[in-house]
Amino acid sequence: MDVSAYMTELGQQARAAAREVARSATAVRNQALLATAQMLDAAREQLAEANGKDLEAGRANGLDAAMLDRLELTPARIDTMIEGLRQVATLPDPVGEITDMTYRPSGIQVGKMRVPLGVIGIIYESRPNVTVEAASLCLKSGNATILRGGSEAIHSNQAIARCLKQGLAEAGLPETAVQVVNTTDRAAVGELITMPEYVDVIVPRGGKGLIERISRDARVPVIKHLDGVCHVYIDSHADPEKALNVAINSKTQRYGTCNTMETLLVDREVADDMLPLLAEQFTAKGVELRGCERTRAVLKNIAEATEDDWHEEYLAPILAIKVVDGLDGAIDHINRYSSQHTDSIITENYTRARRFLMEVDSSSVMVNASTRFADGFEYGLGAEIGISTDKIHARGPVGLEGLTSQKYLVFGDGHIRT
Amino acid sequence: MDVSAYMTELGQQARAAAREVARSATAVRNQALLATAQMLDAAREQLAEANGKDLEAGRANGLDAAMLDRLELTPARIDTMIEGLRQVATLPDPVGEITDMTYRPSGIQVGKMRVPLGVIGIIYESRPNVTVEAASLCLKSGNATILRGGSEAIHSNQAIARCLKQGLAEAGLPETAVQVVNTTDRAAVGELITMPEYVDVIVPRGGKGLIERISRDARVPVIKHLDGVCHVYIDSHADPEKALNVAINSKTQRYGTCNTMETLLVDREVADDMLPLLAEQFTAKGVELRGCERTRAVLKNIAEATEDDWHEEYLAPILAIKVVDGLDGAIDHINRYSSQHTDSIITENYTRARRFLMEVDSSSVMVNASTRFADGFEYGLGAEIGISTDKIHARGPVGLEGLTSQKYLVFGDGHIRT
Repeated sequence: MDVSAYMTELGQQARAAAREVARSATAVRNQALLATAQMLDAAREQLAEANGKDLEAGRANGLDAAMLDRLELTPARIDTMIEGLRQVATLPDPVGEITDMTYRPSGIQVGKMRVPLGVIGIIYESRPNVTVEAASLCLKSGNATILRGGSEAIHSNQAIARCLKQGLAEAGLPETAVQVVNTTDRAAVGELITMPEYVDVIVPRGGKGLIERISRDARVPVIKHLDGVCHVYIDSHADPEKALNVAINSKTQRYGTCNTMETLLVDREVADDMLPLLAEQFTAKGVELRGCERTRAVLKNIAEATEDDWHEEYLAPILAIKVVDGLDGAIDHINRYSSQHTDSIITENYTRARRFLMEVDSSSVMVNASTRFADGFEYGLGAEIGISTDKIHARGPVGLEGLTSQKYLVFGDGHIRT
Repeated sequence: MDVSAYMTELGQQARAAAREVARSATAVRNQALLATAQMLDAAREQLAEANGKDLEAGRANGLDAAMLDRLELTPARIDTMIEGLRQVATLPDPVGEITDMTYRPSGIQVGKMRVPLGVIGIIYESRPNVTVEAASLCLKSGNATILRGGSEAIHSNQAIARCLKQGLAEAGLPETAVQVVNTTDRAAVGELITMPEYVDVIVPRGGKGLIERISRDARVPVIKHLDGVCHVYIDSHADPEKALNVAINSKTQRYGTCNTMETLLVDREVADDMLPLLAEQFTAKGVELRGCERTRAVLKNIAEATEDDWHEEYLAPILAIKVVDGLDGAIDHINRYSSQHTDSIITENYTRARRFLMEVDSSSVMVNASTRFADGFEYGLGAEIGISTDKIHARGPVGLEGLTSQKYLVFGDGHIRT
């Protein structure tokens, strides 16, 4: 197979389809989403069969239990995909929203209209349900999509792709509005990220290694989520109960998510009081603690945190703890080590809260709230294609609006520039 | 000189300065702008002297008259730079604006705050006044800047840089908030566009070749303006007088600007009536016309337009003309050949105007208005760092807001996720 020619063909088809999708009515795009939901429901057997092939191959290739679990399309996961499609159909359509129309001194009227980005390339790893999630958000926001899933999920992804094509056809939209790359050749990724003439933006979802590689090699803009080294800072003016609750929740509500706290900062003024209370609860939950020198002066039994720990996204029941010199010490540490994802201050002090919000340069900054809230659904976006740790275009949870842009509209009455 | 080490040093200094600038008060940044204006005014002699060196070297190196003209810092151009700084100081500060604060069902309050991008790299060619223009917009929007001007303007740019440093110091801001690269080694550009740890976005300003090269090699996001192949489409329902006025103005008000019309599309239903009227006026203004076959059936004396002409940004008194089959023909041509900059329809028909606005995928779409209006000042942005032909982040004229992003704010009262 000539991968380059194949990807070029997908790109050309996507570009042509994007124009049709962009000008389609909201109701037509919603119809395609609902029809796809029906198709998935009707294709449960075929989905199970295709998924079975992937699972079998996965076991034969020695995938670990976690990988196999993520690869599996259980009936409950198919239900979730179907529910997700129906949910996205109910969301408001961002496309076509016109804002900021004003008259200028020249007499022209100027404003902005929200428009799709065009063609979105999605590159992801084992979970086949991402195929539906990502395709539905891109379609709802008026974009065409080229999806490149993990090679271990190829049969599952192709079975899902058939349902998407049927759903699109049912609504009268081009089947090429959603295309799932049908080759496991890794060269396909290299092609996808270097076709600026056919692809407007790449959204990679997966491990840090994958995303760094894509960012380095891409010649198309990338909306990326690198990692989540999130902090909670317990200020000397914190309410101790709120501090305990938020710190415990930020770390232990789920260990494997990007908005989980990885480093806890404690003001030295309250370190003697707070650290033993925190350690008791974290230890009871089975969290391994690693502390700086000043932390270990209070918590004598815990391991030493090294420079590497401040950079580490554990995604596990491990927590680094550092005693800092007040707000300035906390902000310095965060702006140095944070991955600019989500950081929270616990304080009752107005001025310190305000400074933290202003001076911490992360996509979500919080006061007296768990870092676990950094999520498109919790923020009311209705859906989430990812959480951006970039500064350009979209920061933080990216919903439908992040898959659009704005163009200028100008209304005149024969106006000319003089 | 070790260019790599030098650029890394500039990058580290810019990153540190960016934090200070981001949290500085509006009044302090305005003070720096006004102080720089004073410094420029006081340094007219030194500026003239430095510029004299550049002009002398330019003449010795055989720069053409147009290049030398762009390089020259006349007293009037220094006045314009000073006026520009004062103007930018009066603009509203986009940084810190908080919008969309709402309560979520969980009880947290979520909204967005506008924040600077961080460090902006500007790469530009001969005009030294860009140094002040770009630096002032970046500073006003809370960003640090690294500027890399043309080697032919190095003395002028360094003289301007000294005024900027004095202005920053006067306001108590770090002098490294604006840094002008002090080497003509071209490797400096390569370094600047591949330091994502120190530079958040690159804004290149110059010819298409420069910008294509930078976009290809950059490992940092680029806000770019490639070219302006702008169209006016005269619909069969156009008011003939408006059509004539807008077409003439779009082409002839200035020839060398990116928002100048390069191709005129005329609906075949009105071609016989409109083309002779248009040709008469264009010819009187000295514009060379090149037409498609159907155009030349009416205007028998004009040259033939080839495929290349539809792609061409003439930036000169040359106009390509094509007769198209109605609105669909016009939209097809535009979406194929337009550089997605600015396109305008002339029509009195409501449905066609609406379709044109929706279906033409350009950063500015207009009805009954000259393409020459596509400009930050005309749109009320107060200033313009460039016109983006990208779809990500910013489309069309980019003002202060385009140099910022938004982060999420979350307010809780000890809220945890359940």
